[in-house]
Amino acid sequence: MARYQLGQVNADGSPATTDRGKAVRPTLCLLMCEALGGDLEAALPAAAGLELLHNFTLVHDDVMDDDETRRHRPTVWVVWGRAQAIDAGDLLHVLATLSVLRSGGNNTSPTLAKDAAEVVTEGCRRVTEGQHLDIAFETAPNVGVADYLDMIARKSAALLAVAFELGAIFAGNDPATRDACRAYGRELGIVFQIRDDVLGIWGDPTVTGKPVGADIQKRKKTLPVIHALESSAGPDRARLRSMFSDDSRPPDVKSTMEILERAGSRNFTEEQIRKHGNLASQALARLPVNAWGRRNLEAVATYIAARDR
Amino acid sequence: MARYQLGQVNADGSPATTDRGKAVRPTLCLLMCEALGGDLEAALPAAAGLELLHNFTLVHDDVMDDDETRRHRPTVWVVWGRAQAIDAGDLLHVLATLSVLRSGGNNTSPTLAKDAAEVVTEGCRRVTEGQHLDIAFETAPNVGVADYLDMIARKSAALLAVAFELGAIFAGNDPATRDACRAYGRELGIVFQIRDDVLGIWGDPTVTGKPVGADIQKRKKTLPVIHALESSAGPDRARLRSMFSDDSRPPDVKSTMEILERAGSRNFTEEQIRKHGNLASQALARLPVNAWGRRNLEAVATYIAARDR
Repeated sequence: MARYQLGQVNADGSPATTDRGKAVRPTLCLLMCEALGGDLEAALPAAAGLELLHNFTLVHDDVMDDDETRRHRPTVWVVWGRAQAIDAGDLLHVLATLSVLRSGGNNTSPTLAKDAAEVVTEGCRRVTEGQHLDIAFETAPNVGVADYLDMIARKSAALLAVAFELGAIFAGNDPATRDACRAYGRELGIVFQIRDDVLGIWGDPTVTGKPVGADIQKRKKTLPVIHALESSAGPDRARLRSMFSDDSRPPDVKSTMEILERAGSRNFTEEQIRKHGNLASQALARLPVNAWGRRNLEAVATYIAARDR
Repeated sequence: MARYQLGQVNADGSPATTDRGKAVRPTLCLLMCEALGGDLEAALPAAAGLELLHNFTLVHDDVMDDDETRRHRPTVWVVWGRAQAIDAGDLLHVLATLSVLRSGGNNTSPTLAKDAAEVVTEGCRRVTEGQHLDIAFETAPNVGVADYLDMIARKSAALLAVAFELGAIFAGNDPATRDACRAYGRELGIVFQIRDDVLGIWGDPTVTGKPVGADIQKRKKTLPVIHALESSAGPDRARLRSMFSDDSRPPDVKSTMEILERAGSRNFTEEQIRKHGNLASQALARLPVNAWGRRNLEAVATYIAARDR
C-alpha cells in the first residue's frame, strides 16, 4: 500500500509507470543543501523521509476528505478500505521517521540525525495542527484572515520550512542559517498556498485544467473569500454569507467574483503574495549561499509567486 | 483531543477524574531501567513517549474498528468525528517521537536519544504491520497458528519489547543486554496476548466482568479457535468453520467450547503460554539485573502468565 501510494506499484503489486508526484520537498531540501555547500549524501535519507512524510499526510487526508482520486488513480482507501489506509498512513509516518534517523552519512556523530528528526517531527506537529484547524474551519461561523493565514502557515508551509532547514542542518548546522532557511520556507509556503487560492478563482481554465471559479463552485473558503466575508458591507456581505452557507447549491460564480472585486479581495490577496514574497527574499538575502544557489533559489521563489497552474 | 484520550480532561476541556489507563509500558520500561541500575531521569521522556505512542494506536484502532467506548467514555471519533480523530492520533504519534527524542537527561551525547527513537520507531513499524495482518485476517480464508503467532508478536508484543529495550538503553546501552530485554519483552507480550485469548473464552465471568465465551460470541478468531480450525477433523471441523463464517448469528458458545476441548485446543493454548513463558525466563536469566529487579521482573512474568482478568 505504501509503494502504491508512492507510485511505485499498481494495486496488484506489479511495477507501475504512473505519476509519482513532483518530489518538491526533497528536491528543495537538496537544492538548499547544495547551495550552502553541504553534504548531499548525508542529507539524502532525510530528504527521502520528507517525501514519505508528505505521502503519509496525503493518505490520511484522502480518508478524512473522502477523496477518491489522487494522481489519476483510486486513493489507497478506495482500493483497500479505510482501516487499512489509516494503518498504511501510519506506516509511511514511521518509515519517514526511520529514514530521517538514518541520515548523516559517514558522519559518526548522531547529532545531525537527531536534529533532523526533531525538525521533521516538529514540522509534522505543525501540519497536524493545521489540519485540525482546516477541518474545524469548515463548520466554524467566523473564520478571519488572520485565522486563515495561521492555518496555512502550519498546514501548507511547515513542511517547506522543514525542507530548507534540513538542507542547512547537513551544511554546517549553523543556528542563524537554520533560522533563515526556516523563514524562507515558511514565507514561500504561504506564497505557494495563496497563489493556489488565486488560481482556484481567477486561474485560466485552459492552463489550470479546472473550470472558471473552481474553488467557488466547491464552496472553498480560501483567502479571497474569507477577506470578502470580513470586509464587504451591506447587501454584498449578506449575499456572500448566504451563498457560502447554503448547502443545497453551489455559490453563483459570477456574482461571487463581482463581490470579491468590489471588496478589493483580489488586490488584497495579490498584496499578501507580494508581502510574503518580500519576506522570503529578505530571508534569502541572509543566507550564505553560493551564486549558483542564489540564482536557483530566486528562480524557485519567482516561479512559486507567479506560476499560472 | 490528545488530553481527552490520555484521560486528563473531559470533552469540554475541564479537568477529568477518569481512568487514565494502567501505563503498563512506561512502568515496565522504568522497572527494567532501575533493575539494570540505569538513569531513571534520562529514561523518563522515552517512557512517557511509549504511553503517547500506545494512545496514538488506540485512537486509530477505535476509528478502524468502529469502537464507541474506551475506558468507560465515548471514543475520540465519537466526540469529534473521524477526521479529527485520525488527525489527533497523528498528533499523539508526533508527540511520542518528540518525547523520545528529548530523552537522555543531562547526558550531552545525543546517542541515547537517537537510539531510543530508532527502537521506538522500529517497534511502531511492527505494530502497524501487526495491525495490517489483524485486519487482513478478518477476511482471510485460512489463517493458521503460525500466522496468528506472527501477528500478535507484532501487534501486541512489539511495544513491550521496546519498553524493556528502552530500559536497557538508559542503563549502559549494552547490545547483549538490549537483545535479552527485547526477547524478554517479546515473549512476555506473546504470553500476555495468549492469556487474553484464554480469558476471552474460559475466563470466570464474575472476575473478568465479561460473559462466558465472550470472544466466541464476537466471532473472534483467537488462538484456541484458530488451532481448532486447523486441527479438528470431520464434522467438528465443518461445524466450526460454518459457525465462524456465518455473519447472520454468533457461534454457539457451548458447542464451540466442546469442539475446542475435543481438538485439544485449550491444552495447546496453555502449552504455548508455558513455552513462551519459559523463553521469557531464559531471556531474564541472561539479564545483569540486581536482586530487587529480578524479584520484580519474575513477579511481572508470573502475573502476566496467570492473571485471571
